Amino acid sequence: MSGRSAAHASEGGPTVVVKLGGSLITEKDRPETLDGEALAAAADAIAAALSAGHVDRLVLVHGGGSFGHHHASEHGVSTTAGTHDPGAVMAVHGAMTTLNRFVLSRLQERDVPAVPVHPLSAAARPSGVDGGLDLPLGSTATLLDEGFVPVLHGDGVATADAGVTVVSGDELVVALANGLDVDRVGVCSTVPGVLDGDDVIPAIDSFAAVAEVLGESDATDVSGGMAAKVAELLALDTPAHVFGATGLAPFLRGEEPGTRIG
Amino acid sequence: MSGRSAAHASEGGPTVVVKLGGSLITEKDRPETLDGEALAAAADAIAAALSAGHVDRLVLVHGGGSFGHHHASEHGVSTTAGTHDPGAVMAVHGAMTTLNRFVLSRLQERDVPAVPVHPLSAAARPSGVDGGLDLPLGSTATLLDEGFVPVLHGDGVATADAGVTVVSGDELVVALANGLDVDRVGVCSTVPGVLDGDDVIPAIDSFAAVAEVLGESDATDVSGGMAAKVAELLALDTPAHVFGATGLAPFLRGEEPGTRIG
Repeated sequence: MSGRSAAHASEGGPTVVVKLGGSLITEKDRPETLDGEALAAAADAIAAALSAGHVDRLVLVHGGGSFGHHHASEHGVSTTAGTHDPGAVMAVHGAMTTLNRFVLSRLQERDVPAVPVHPLSAAARPSGVDGGLDLPLGSTATLLDEGFVPVLHGDGVATADAGVTVVSGDELVVALANGLDVDRVGVCSTVPGVLDGDDVIPAIDSFAAVAEVLGESDATDVSGGMAAKVAELLALDTPAHVFGATGLAPFLRGEEPGTRIG
Repeated sequence: MSGRSAAHASEGGPTVVVKLGGSLITEKDRPETLDGEALAAAADAIAAALSAGHVDRLVLVHGGGSFGHHHASEHGVSTTAGTHDPGAVMAVHGAMTTLNRFVLSRLQERDVPAVPVHPLSAAARPSGVDGGLDLPLGSTATLLDEGFVPVLHGDGVATADAGVTVVSGDELVVALANGLDVDRVGVCSTVPGVLDGDDVIPAIDSFAAVAEVLGESDATDVSGGMAAKVAELLALDTPAHVFGATGLAPFLRGEEPGTRIG
C-alpha cells in the first residue's frame, strides 16, 4: 500500500496531458537503464503540482527510451513494420511494462495516485499501418474521473495485416488530446523546446514557418523526431508546449516554458 | 524469443472463447501459488487443438484464483465494492499480471502465439457498479485476426463513483461472447459440469429448471459462484459448455463435455 487515495476529482476541472520523453527518463544509449535522477525530478514536479492544486486531472504518457526502442529495433518492429512473433511482442511490451512499473512506483512514492494503462490491451490500427490509431478511452476517462492519474506508454499495438506494430508516446498524446476534453498538452524531453540553432523558438503557428529549421527526423528514433512531433501537435485543437526537464514544473503551474505549438 | 509466429488466421474461421477458472490453474487456498500441473495440462490441450486445426481463432480468459482473490478480499474490493487507493489497485492488478505472465509463458513454450490483454487498460463501468461493463474489443479482435491468441484475465476495472472494482473472468467471457462473432464458449473449472448432487446435468435451457439445485453462490468467491455463472451463460446467444479439466481437450475438438448451457 502506498500513498493517499485518489481524490474524487471534480469532472469540470482542467485536464492536462503530459508526455515524459523516453530519452528524458532513461539512458537512451544503455539498454534498459533508467535515468533515476531525471525520473525522480519529474515525479517531484508532478507531485508538487497535484498537491498545490495547479492540476487536478492529469494523464501521463511516457516514451520507450532505452527500454522499448532497443527491443523494437532488434526485432525490426516500428510504427509501420509489424511482427507476428509473440516473442517479439513480449520483448517490446515486457520491457515497456517494466519501465512503466518504475514510473508508477516513483509517482506512488510521492502520493500521486498513478495507475497503468497499457496501450497493447486497448488500442488497434484496424485499417493497417497506413490507417488511424483506434484508442478507446473509456478506461482512461473513468480512471481520471475517479481521481487517478492514468499512465500510458509507447507499446505494441495490434495492426491489421501487419501483426503488432509500435505505437509511440507521441501518437498516444495526440489520441488523448483528441479523445478527451483536454485543456493543455505538455511534451517534456531532453531539449528545452523546438530549436533554431541554439535558440528556442517561442511559438510555432504553422509547419511551413519552421519546416526548413526542423529538417529530417532523427533516424535512430523508431517513433519519429521533432519534425513529426511538431506536425502532429499543430494538428491538435489544444495548445501544446514542448520543453525540457526544467520546464515541467512551470508548465504544470500554468506557465508557458519552451515552445508553444498551435 | 519463443515459439512460432502467429499464423494469419482466416477471418471466417470459427471463434472460440475458453475460460480457465482461477481455481483450476492456481492453488486457491495458498496465496499466489500456481497449480503448475493443471496449467501445463490445459496448455497442452490448447496447443494440441491449435496444432491439429480443431480451433483457429481462440480467445482465452483466466480467473484470479489465489492471485487475485487474496488481494481483492484483503483490500475489500469486489465486483460491487471499489477502491480509490492506488496501492490496492496495484496489489490486485499486479498479482493478476503475474499470473497472466505464467499462463502466457506456459502457452508460448508450446508454440501458442499468446499475448496479454489486461482489462484494467481497456474496460470501464461508466455507469457505476450497477451499470454494464464496457469492454472495447478493437485490440482483441485485431490480435485475433492477426493469428494471435489474446489472453484476458480477471482484473481491476475503472468504475464511475466507485474507483476501481473487480471484473471477473466470467464477466469477460460474457462481454467477449457478446462483442465478438463467437461460435462456442467453454468454461473449464475444477468441477466436471453443473452438478445435481453428484451427477453432471447434461444440458440447461432455463434458469428456473435448475434454480433449486444451484442454490446460493459460494461466499468465498468475490466473483460469484455457479448460479451467477449459469444465469450469465444462459443469456448468451452462443452455446456454452461448463466442464472440468479432462473436458478441455474434447471441448476444443468440438465435442460436448460437461453441461451444455443454452
